[in-house]
Amino acid sequence: MKNNNTEQKSNFKFKVHEIIFEADTKWGRIFDETLIVLIILSVIAVMLDSVKAIRLEYGEALYIIEWAFTILFSIEYLFRLYCVGRPMKYAGSFYGIVDLLAILPTYISLILPGTQLLIIIRILRVLRVFRVFKIVQYIGEIKQLKLALIASRRKITVFLFVVLTIAVVVGSLIYLIEGEENGFTSIPKGIYWSIVTLTTVGYGDISPQTEIGQLLAAMLMIMGYGIIAVPTGIVTVEMGRVKTDKSVSTRSCLECSAEGHEHDAVHCKFCGAKL
Amino acid sequence: MKNNNTEQKSNFKFKVHEIIFEADTKWGRIFDETLIVLIILSVIAVMLDSVKAIRLEYGEALYIIEWAFTILFSIEYLFRLYCVGRPMKYAGSFYGIVDLLAILPTYISLILPGTQLLIIIRILRVLRVFRVFKIVQYIGEIKQLKLALIASRRKITVFLFVVLTIAVVVGSLIYLIEGEENGFTSIPKGIYWSIVTLTTVGYGDISPQTEIGQLLAAMLMIMGYGIIAVPTGIVTVEMGRVKTDKSVSTRSCLECSAEGHEHDAVHCKFCGAKL
Amino acid sequence: MKNNNTEQKSNFKFKVHEIIFEADTKWGRIFDETLIVLIILSVIAVMLDSVKAIRLEYGEALYIIEWAFTILFSIEYLFRLYCVGRPMKYAGSFYGIVDLLAILPTYISLILPGTQLLIIIRILRVLRVFRVFKIVQYIGEIKQLKLALIASRRKITVFLFVVLTIAVVVGSLIYLIEGEENGFTSIPKGIYWSIVTLTTVGYGDISPQTEIGQLLAAMLMIMGYGIIAVPTGIVTVEMGRVKTDKSVSTRSCLECSAEGHEHDAVHCKFCGAKL
Amino acid sequence: MKNNNTEQKSNFKFKVHEIIFEADTKWGRIFDETLIVLIILSVIAVMLDSVKAIRLEYGEALYIIEWAFTILFSIEYLFRLYCVGRPMKYAGSFYGIVDLLAILPTYISLILPGTQLLIIIRILRVLRVFRVFKIVQYIGEIKQLKLALIASRRKITVFLFVVLTIAVVVGSLIYLIEGEENGFTSIPKGIYWSIVTLTTVGYGDISPQTEIGQLLAAMLMIMGYGIIAVPTGIVTVEMGRVKTDKSVSTRSCLECSAEGHEHDAVHCKFCGAKL
Repeated sequence: MKNNNTEQKSNFKFKVHEIIFEADTKWGRIFDETLIVLIILSVIAVMLDSVKAIRLEYGEALYIIEWAFTILFSIEYLFRLYCVGRPMKYAGSFYGIVDLLAILPTYISLILPGTQLLIIIRILRVLRVFRVFKIVQYIGEIKQLKLALIASRRKITVFLFVVLTIAVVVGSLIYLIEGEENGFTSIPKGIYWSIVTLTTVGYGDISPQTEIGQLLAAMLMIMGYGIIAVPTGIVTVEMGRVKTDKSVSTRSCLECSAEGHEHDAVHCKFCGAKL
Repeated sequence: MKNNNTEQKSNFKFKVHEIIFEADTKWGRIFDETLIVLIILSVIAVMLDSVKAIRLEYGEALYIIEWAFTILFSIEYLFRLYCVGRPMKYAGSFYGIVDLLAILPTYISLILPGTQLLIIIRILRVLRVFRVFKIVQYIGEIKQLKLALIASRRKITVFLFVVLTIAVVVGSLIYLIEGEENGFTSIPKGIYWSIVTLTTVGYGDISPQTEIGQLLAAMLMIMGYGIIAVPTGIVTVEMGRVKTDKSVSTRSCLECSAEGHEHDAVHCKFCGAKL
Repeated sequence: MKNNNTEQKSNFKFKVHEIIFEADTKWGRIFDETLIVLIILSVIAVMLDSVKAIRLEYGEALYIIEWAFTILFSIEYLFRLYCVGRPMKYAGSFYGIVDLLAILPTYISLILPGTQLLIIIRILRVLRVFRVFKIVQYIGEIKQLKLALIASRRKITVFLFVVLTIAVVVGSLIYLIEGEENGFTSIPKGIYWSIVTLTTVGYGDISPQTEIGQLLAAMLMIMGYGIIAVPTGIVTVEMGRVKTDKSVSTRSCLECSAEGHEHDAVHCKFCGAKL
Repeated sequence: MKNNNTEQKSNFKFKVHEIIFEADTKWGRIFDETLIVLIILSVIAVMLDSVKAIRLEYGEALYIIEWAFTILFSIEYLFRLYCVGRPMKYAGSFYGIVDLLAILPTYISLILPGTQLLIIIRILRVLRVFRVFKIVQYIGEIKQLKLALIASRRKITVFLFVVLTIAVVVGSLIYLIEGEENGFTSIPKGIYWSIVTLTTVGYGDISPQTEIGQLLAAMLMIMGYGIIAVPTGIVTVEMGRVKTDKSVSTRSCLECSAEGHEHDAVHCKFCGAKL
């Protein structure tokens, strides 16, 4: 009888695991979708709480809502710990930590009230939304994006190095040209302006006033406008390659050993033999 | 005789349909082009009416022009209802509603004068211009653009999720770093600034004042400058693929009638017969 | 003897034509390069003349320089008229008009002094620089760029239509939301702001102040940030196609009629027969 | 014995060369990585020294640090001169000059104290970081980027010419339209504004105030938003081609030893022999 009980328990554990961690079953999907809605709502609650006018009027309601979300997420966290095979490994994983950080700040605020920093930790629960991408039809897409970005990471590094070097050199130059009286109070400020200009953001909080400064700025802008083509080119080519790799079968013809057949090919397109 | 009358009527209905709904005949094309000019003119009239100086001086003339357009479009709407096979289906379709919204506000303004909201509804008649794309040579192009965007919609969704998550996290961080005294009065404000910066728009209405804030801003800018490569890559690759699909040979196998052979194929890849 | 004279004259005419209109000979190239330097210098002179501080001090010198350039360009223009086969056709062509506009304003300024408009016409002489691209090694490149842009012109038109429609609709919405008190004084102003935001320029001269306005702005920014991918994709694909078209020979194998051989291929890559 | 000494010396020279100039050995890599850290630290020191608040408080410490770096880099420079085969050729090369410029300003500041210009020269030592890219796994990536940029340099030149011409013409137009009272004090200022707008930077320090000016600005923005597609397309296609060149089969013909066959080739395209 005890054995039966254990089996039942293990069966229950398995069911819970299936619902919470997977998205293939009907209830798993419903759980996932509910969770996403709850996460987004809780993040919106944190945001609204930071707006003074709203906090003054609905502060109490938001406090209750925050606790409701915290308790719900705590239950979820405990269930996750319960049903997973190795609880410690889950607790130490990226999502395990994010799950914990989603509930911890509210409890800490009981002991250390008013800590501003807790807000940003609470906001991090937005990262939990990425569980959504477990959903089957997105996995392939994410994998492709990841592969393309991994394949281009070295070229992107080289590119970033070049961009930062330009920003440092031009930022120092503009500091010398414009000087403190035009808002370029130090080299780091100059570099900040360089980056604002090179990336075509252009706040306009600091902008060159002298003719030579504006000439340098114009050259930097055209440079920034042009070199955006480089990361774009890198990523596009890598994405194209990922795509191409997928669209060609790895089969080779038994007769003529020709390769490069499409997935739907039945016969070798070079010698006509059956594949 | 009555029969003849009905036939004549049906024939007339068919002719009207051909002119109003199609663009293959000479008169159909003339009708379309006239309509586009009228739509653009009527939209310009609505725009001008919103400029105070113009409204004060030419308000009356614009009022008459608006009524002229409304009556013209009403007649057109009635003709569309008349000649179409299933009037209710047309009236409920996207363009049917847009056509109705193009005339309704002016009539409503007789009953409820001065409603500002009617302006935006009136402006929606600009959507009618998209009827222009019925014109034959654009259909293929639009189809290709659509296919490319549909094919990339999942990757774009993932991309948007990542961008919004970055905006939320960085927006909360900047709120903590800069605080209310530098214009970052709430997390939503911080997120607004994040998006302004990440998309390289850079109004400069709010901008970081502290050194750490500017460092975070610089990192966000470079990120925004770099990740623009991702949607560009996605769409470019999909567009290239749409193009490639078109470049598949138009030959069909004489044996099995299968299509979609590559240009360099010698044998049918489905049945092995020589092409 | 007279005949000889005519021949000599015709020979001289031919030589002048070769130097002025072509860039294959040594003197033709020297002439072209000198001309480009002169054009750029004369444009810089016009620019400097518009700077008050410089005009006040060096006004007289710039006046003399302007006349020197005008006389030089006049002589060149007369030579072009003289040596070209059909002078009227040249005078009516695009570059013929640009050449005339480069000298006319200075003469007109004798009769109608102080006409501001003459400056912009004078500036148009910058267009003459495009003669530089006659230089052999650029012709192929320009042709490719042109072909790619022509091939994508319809898709770009569709894209511009969509962008303008978004700008009109969002511009009207923001006018309703923000109203005159926040700087959105009319729908055209709202559309101007829309375009400033959608294209990620972001002056910040007008920016939304209300929460709903900022939400709409954020959505518009992300849209603008994303749809830049569309023209990029279009042009990239067309450029890739232009390249590809060039890199494949149009020859077909005499034995197996296979096509798609590279330009340097001597034998058919499918059956091995000599091409 | 003297011979032995010379040999030892030459051997020592070779070892030093291996460590300083190459990155294949363990010590060479350690040296490189240490150097990069030192360079970055020394650049940060120069930056911090330009911040008034920091200079006032830690000025003395930064002065000592600057001398420490200078002495270290001087020793390194001497070692480079010592171990290299042809010291004069190294001293005259790009990196030789950069290495010298990294140490010279500090010595000069002893003779000519307070020269602002020395800062920018000191900052140039950031260029030394590019030695990092000697590291093996980056060489291939840089080569590809370089090849793609070299292949697209002519098209980029044409593109820059077009962009600058648009900037000059629109800059003059806006100067005429807006005039001095709206901040467009001269044509160069107008061109500066054109470039700020066309590259989508959009500082907002100068922005059009009249309706016609804003219309022109809107057109310029859409143009700038659209033509970014051109350099992107150029670079992407060239990058794709560089990639493709790599994907050519590594097989060489057994008969004529020709290389560069496509993956699906059956026969050598040069001599017709079976591959």
